[in-house]
Amino acid sequence: MKIVIAPDSFKESLTALEVANAIEAGFRQVFPDAEYIKVPMADGGEGTVQSMVDATQGHLVDLEVTGPLGNRVMAQYGILGSVEGQTSSTAVIEMASASGLHLVPRDQRDPLYTTSFGTGELIKDALDRGIKHIVLGLGGSATNDAGVGLAQALGIQFQGDNHQELPFGGMALAQLSQVDVSQAHPLLAECRFDVACDVDNPLCGERGASAIFGPQKGATPEMVTLLDKTLEHFADVLVQNGFADHRLDPGAGAAGGMGLGAKVFLNATLKPGIEIVMETVGLADKLQNADLVITGEGRIDGQTVFGKTPMGVLKQANANGVPTIGIAGSLGKDAEAILAHGMLAIFPIIPALDSLDNVLAQAESNLINSSRNIAAAIQFGRLMS
Amino acid sequence: MKIVIAPDSFKESLTALEVANAIEAGFRQVFPDAEYIKVPMADGGEGTVQSMVDATQGHLVDLEVTGPLGNRVMAQYGILGSVEGQTSSTAVIEMASASGLHLVPRDQRDPLYTTSFGTGELIKDALDRGIKHIVLGLGGSATNDAGVGLAQALGIQFQGDNHQELPFGGMALAQLSQVDVSQAHPLLAECRFDVACDVDNPLCGERGASAIFGPQKGATPEMVTLLDKTLEHFADVLVQNGFADHRLDPGAGAAGGMGLGAKVFLNATLKPGIEIVMETVGLADKLQNADLVITGEGRIDGQTVFGKTPMGVLKQANANGVPTIGIAGSLGKDAEAILAHGMLAIFPIIPALDSLDNVLAQAESNLINSSRNIAAAIQFGRLMS
Repeated sequence: MKIVIAPDSFKESLTALEVANAIEAGFRQVFPDAEYIKVPMADGGEGTVQSMVDATQGHLVDLEVTGPLGNRVMAQYGILGSVEGQTSSTAVIEMASASGLHLVPRDQRDPLYTTSFGTGELIKDALDRGIKHIVLGLGGSATNDAGVGLAQALGIQFQGDNHQELPFGGMALAQLSQVDVSQAHPLLAECRFDVACDVDNPLCGERGASAIFGPQKGATPEMVTLLDKTLEHFADVLVQNGFADHRLDPGAGAAGGMGLGAKVFLNATLKPGIEIVMETVGLADKLQNADLVITGEGRIDGQTVFGKTPMGVLKQANANGVPTIGIAGSLGKDAEAILAHGMLAIFPIIPALDSLDNVLAQAESNLINSSRNIAAAIQFGRLMS
Repeated sequence: MKIVIAPDSFKESLTALEVANAIEAGFRQVFPDAEYIKVPMADGGEGTVQSMVDATQGHLVDLEVTGPLGNRVMAQYGILGSVEGQTSSTAVIEMASASGLHLVPRDQRDPLYTTSFGTGELIKDALDRGIKHIVLGLGGSATNDAGVGLAQALGIQFQGDNHQELPFGGMALAQLSQVDVSQAHPLLAECRFDVACDVDNPLCGERGASAIFGPQKGATPEMVTLLDKTLEHFADVLVQNGFADHRLDPGAGAAGGMGLGAKVFLNATLKPGIEIVMETVGLADKLQNADLVITGEGRIDGQTVFGKTPMGVLKQANANGVPTIGIAGSLGKDAEAILAHGMLAIFPIIPALDSLDNVLAQAESNLINSSRNIAAAIQFGRLMS
């Protein structure tokens, strides 16, 4: 029996690899001789670097970079190990690591001034190491600068009428008149960028970056109006400078306009995060001849079917004809919706009402117990038939 | 496929029959054509009357009787329907219904004066209807009167030196000098009594009725000493009156000495509640040729293996060679202990942390969902082999 274990992390308690190990430990109590293929998964959001590094036996790189407020912060990205037996030259970067909202104290949140420069520094470091493929996750950013900070870190120049380089932040783009790519990092053009993007928001307007994502980054209604106008001006200047107009592209507004910036300055492809992860770790190949795939996430609910890891794994497993079971830290409203997409069963692991802290602390043992019991039910079915 | 569903009730949310119905509903989504035998179970504690009436299509009898404080209360007992196709002449009585602690406001709890008379009135009513077998559950009593009140309701007379009938309550027994059974209910001797008793406490002493169960009924340390002495005197008087000495029998101290009273005045057999219930509803027969039995309880924990319903059902199923799965409202500390006794797997049904009220209110749908998912895992096993 070949069992593929491909869960996401359980947020705030277990990495995807730890989840996979616990599921394996539970199943091994019932099926000690099965073949277990563990594929830590992610959907492009928090934990993606850790999962992909774990899935490929890669490694993490720590780097001091420029934080969202211009201060120095420690950030991290991943360089993948081997995929399908081949040494990888892929790096995985989460924008949140260098430019994340969690790096900005609540009372200092101000998307007029935050910059994505640090994320660009991570990319520069990867390019300097000869990386030829970068997966960039956009979740959790503190910025509204359309990726200009990122591009600045890679040598692209953004100047106002006075030919001075613009300072950091979304508001500074109001003064932009010229973009100069002549000093761009020499290896930038040789690197392929896949950007994990699960939203389809355009750059500007009611559904744009500023209106939809600005408020959670600290923007007041007045700031939203200002930022939205500024991004519109930015898009106009790009066109005046000979760039293609991507402002209406689905996802252009992701991460404060980073969706657009990545397209323009990185020539990136925007794709659902789960698809990028599955391609990059080679999930489809690992599912060949599998008898069962077990996926899961900290929480499965009605939103899970919209591009979360369990849904992505389920789709791929369906394509490979492999039955799928889900295990979740908890099941939220309409969790059962995923059954209609062909998941065989979903199991929560909470044994009893308790404090969240206790439940998170016991996640590993609860997961082992639940997995053992699920395996026992499967084994019962095998023996009875 | 024949599936026996034999759960206890989920306290504060679902009767055992409701639990069984929900499990069936979940399993039917996966196995629509299986044969389902539902056997609502109990272990002699709260819910035993309801479960046994439901298991046998019996009926409930409502009766106004004397409450623990001598006031009038509405009580209820069950008359079983058919067992093994035979009309039953068995009644099931929970002492708590007429003589329970829940009937006494907290500030009026005083085991010196509480009486088991009402429970005797329920028995009298059953005898008057021609009942020949009574199952009596002892849990939750407010009394410490060694079953004297119960016996008084059945015509047995307890007199002091002045030849006056004693008043209600454990303290009154201090004046007892004579017991007269000549006026006992004429059908009493023709009725067989099975008393559900899961404790082995003797009548008196450190492990006796007063010391162990007195405090929860409102006894202060001084009252415990007084009551314990009084029960010792009572046991002496019984011997002086020609009754066998049962004071050291295991269970004599159950329910304020009702264990002893039931032996002396009802010629009762004391047995673990789960065994009486299993015998009375004919569980062993129903397990013949079953492929699976599903049991469960509101909570399964390390104590479950000591005589609770899931353990009783498991033992019987083991004897019949039928695999057993448990489903619980929640799993407490050391719940996995029951696996060592041969249970295949245990599953909790809580989907997510929530208020207790919400979890109780959603118990039925959670149980249906969990059961469906367990069935799906079994079905997966059947199809893969």
